[in-house]
Amino acid sequence: MDTALVVLSGGQDSTTCLYWALDRFSAGHIEAVTFDYGQRHRIELDCAARVTARAEVPHTVLPIDTFAALGGSALIDPGIAVRSGVDARTQLPNTFVPGRNLIFLTFAAALAYQRGIHHLVTGVAQTDYSGYPDCRQATLQALEQTLRLGMDYDLTIHTPLMFQSKADTVRLARDLGALPALADTHTCYLGQQPPCGACPACVLRAKGFAEVGIPDPLVERFRERPA
Amino acid sequence: MDTALVVLSGGQDSTTCLYWALDRFSAGHIEAVTFDYGQRHRIELDCAARVTARAEVPHTVLPIDTFAALGGSALIDPGIAVRSGVDARTQLPNTFVPGRNLIFLTFAAALAYQRGIHHLVTGVAQTDYSGYPDCRQATLQALEQTLRLGMDYDLTIHTPLMFQSKADTVRLARDLGALPALADTHTCYLGQQPPCGACPACVLRAKGFAEVGIPDPLVERFRERPA
Repeated sequence: MDTALVVLSGGQDSTTCLYWALDRFSAGHIEAVTFDYGQRHRIELDCAARVTARAEVPHTVLPIDTFAALGGSALIDPGIAVRSGVDARTQLPNTFVPGRNLIFLTFAAALAYQRGIHHLVTGVAQTDYSGYPDCRQATLQALEQTLRLGMDYDLTIHTPLMFQSKADTVRLARDLGALPALADTHTCYLGQQPPCGACPACVLRAKGFAEVGIPDPLVERFRERPA
Repeated sequence: MDTALVVLSGGQDSTTCLYWALDRFSAGHIEAVTFDYGQRHRIELDCAARVTARAEVPHTVLPIDTFAALGGSALIDPGIAVRSGVDARTQLPNTFVPGRNLIFLTFAAALAYQRGIHHLVTGVAQTDYSGYPDCRQATLQALEQTLRLGMDYDLTIHTPLMFQSKADTVRLARDLGALPALADTHTCYLGQQPPCGACPACVLRAKGFAEVGIPDPLVERFRERPA
């Protein structure tokens, strides 16, 4: 029986992918991995933990301290050794790194290799986003080939949302019975729960649910029981 | 004027590549990056620092705490969050991870992107080694394509030692004037300085120098001034 490893951020898309995997593979053969890379909103990690607990899926959290270092002072002074931490000016970890999904999927592949797992599932999508180059189909295909060659291992990267709109993703979540789990996810750019409702991520998420004509379980959760 | 970023481990091969880059590009346009990933022999980091100081090349050290986590308890209990650290049984960080070079080069590419550098140089070789799949030409070509697509950035990975034997590498180092720098490098699997001379890495290194008929500057250094 094939097993799949789902890269889970704690957001709407990767959570929907977890339920896609539970449907496509079998319940006892799904694992999830989340990366603790110094993300600004630690609530993402809490969401990933809640989502996997609800789905009863084994969950591994892997640290990555490199992004914070890349975003930090090393960029300003190439002569010094860098350390992870907050930016002195902004008091925030500047964690933007090009090709971040390449790193996530390569570490996920390493974990899959060590566990004897041959399927990776990721929620990246070409559509509905600003077209991050590391989320495109061509990139994922090249990466799959690189991982197969570089690990000498049979590995398939599944991208069920690659060409789906946000409304498509909501429909998929509904059909897979994933709506209750979406109440535990996180989307807001401001890191707020209840979500701010006004940032681009909240607006995009709301648009998807509105197009399908069903309420967002996350919004409903706070409507029923205000924070 | 093109700039190159050399992935420097502190060993013989990557140090030779640094001097290849100094020759191929120009002296003021070379940088080096070394990864602090919990390697068993911290002396590698000291060697990389000495090599770059001697060559007057800006040097960035980037931490990666993920390998230790991948090699650690996460593999035994998938339900727990993992942390970097030593293995309770062996008291050593178990840092073997398949495809490790893919990670090194992807992080190096991210650093290059942020610095506006379009050339990466790495000392990986298909020959003289046990054929790690992440060191092969086909893998490096696939990775280059993945990085170009995933970062939407023009990037070339140079592998000057890909098809060189250890003796070829010694000749190259000699011709590039890199022999004095090789006195600062590290090879021994046991992490010893002076090198043990008996482990497979020491034997392979010695064989290369013997074939060319010149003494190893690292061995000479300790002969002149015993530790």
